[in-house]
Amino acid sequence: MNLKGYTIGNFDRGASKGKEALWYFVRFLFFLNYTPLPSSFRVGLLRLFGAKMGNGVVVRNNVNISYPWRLTVGDDVWIGDDVMIISHGSVIIESSVCVSQRAFLCAGSHRFHSPGFDLVTKPIIIRRGSWIASMAFVAMGVEIGPDSMVGAGAVVLKNVPPGTTVLGNPAVLRP
Amino acid sequence: MNLKGYTIGNFDRGASKGKEALWYFVRFLFFLNYTPLPSSFRVGLLRLFGAKMGNGVVVRNNVNISYPWRLTVGDDVWIGDDVMIISHGSVIIESSVCVSQRAFLCAGSHRFHSPGFDLVTKPIIIRRGSWIASMAFVAMGVEIGPDSMVGAGAVVLKNVPPGTTVLGNPAVLRP
Amino acid sequence: MNLKGYTIGNFDRGASKGKEALWYFVRFLFFLNYTPLPSSFRVGLLRLFGAKMGNGVVVRNNVNISYPWRLTVGDDVWIGDDVMIISHGSVIIESSVCVSQRAFLCAGSHRFHSPGFDLVTKPIIIRRGSWIASMAFVAMGVEIGPDSMVGAGAVVLKNVPPGTTVLGNPAVLRP
Repeated sequence: MNLKGYTIGNFDRGASKGKEALWYFVRFLFFLNYTPLPSSFRVGLLRLFGAKMGNGVVVRNNVNISYPWRLTVGDDVWIGDDVMIISHGSVIIESSVCVSQRAFLCAGSHRFHSPGFDLVTKPIIIRRGSWIASMAFVAMGVEIGPDSMVGAGAVVLKNVPPGTTVLGNPAVLRP
Repeated sequence: MNLKGYTIGNFDRGASKGKEALWYFVRFLFFLNYTPLPSSFRVGLLRLFGAKMGNGVVVRNNVNISYPWRLTVGDDVWIGDDVMIISHGSVIIESSVCVSQRAFLCAGSHRFHSPGFDLVTKPIIIRRGSWIASMAFVAMGVEIGPDSMVGAGAVVLKNVPPGTTVLGNPAVLRP
Repeated sequence: MNLKGYTIGNFDRGASKGKEALWYFVRFLFFLNYTPLPSSFRVGLLRLFGAKMGNGVVVRNNVNISYPWRLTVGDDVWIGDDVMIISHGSVIIESSVCVSQRAFLCAGSHRFHSPGFDLVTKPIIIRRGSWIASMAFVAMGVEIGPDSMVGAGAVVLKNVPPGTTVLGNPAVLRP
């Protein structure tokens, strides 16, 4: 690949430049730090920027969300400290899901073998009742659950069937 | 599981609400950032909040400790930048231990198959002379060492015998 | 090992104490946070502190670089949010390289079985056209590429041949 003159091509950012810049600033002020503000304040800001947020959602400190307008969260979801959500593609988190500390949901990637390192996105879906444990990584295009568990530090590159547990890197079904 | 109405049940936080709130604020001011303060200042604060801290301990920047009153650290211990210590259960770090950058000690978890996603804790013990290398993860209930090494990025889900090295995810004895 | 009286021995820090202290402060002010400053400002600061930086380099927020005077970066390189570069040894990143979010390049380690836990360094070289994906870890002494890919979350402990992809922990060639 050659990154000279890299552009994100015809990627649709899903918002105006102004809105994106404003989000960048709001995220800096109220998300990417440990200022002791109530979670409900951050949830409200996410809604203002277009995220669909259910009831009873907790968003802890230092949660890094690229584009809230591509994020959908159900009811009774807990998102822990230092979680990163790259929502270049849609990220859908259904109800009763726990995303533990330092987990990383990454709905974007690149075509490594294209000359321009093209950005490519695919949605991530976390079905209801599932748990993404600490430091786990979930790649784009992955669907998890329902009622499934991704173990701590697991690196998930493909779908996790309902009601199962995956562990390891790359993650596999727990034997 | 169903996170609606999630509570931490009869979990004993080990401190009054006031003390916990004060720790939350002190941690925000002096721990969860890179302000160039001397490590001894942070060690002193940890002692004030009930941690048992030996002599010659270094606590670098952006170290996230849930409950200092459940932390015991021996002499000549080094804790690097961005380390996370979830001390819902006791975390005991003996003398001459190095916990490198971005390592994660997690003395708490959940009963995934209980309806209420019950919080469960077990102590972590790092025996003397051991090394937790960068980006490693140590799960609750694990005892490491003495004189053992957890390789960089290793995900440790069970005990590490004395004088051994573990690598990988899940971590296994180095062949 | 015994960390009592730990010193870094005869390690050459490569800069005066004053320069290192100044870097520590500049890094705190302008690097280890999400303040919305232009990347070019950070690139300029890195040059001032002795890093060799090519054209078209992007350094995103919260990038933690130990010693800029041991960092060499080619043209058209992108370094993402939360990347950690421990440059106790030299870190050389050639042109057209992408280092994604939360990757960790670690050009230092310790002799675990030496009584004094001696610091040891070896250079890291990322050859042109390579990609270090999110949350990957690259150990000291490793050479990657050219035109190679380190998958997300991979833990790379040995060289990655040209034009290959490695995955997993420890990382192995993609089958």
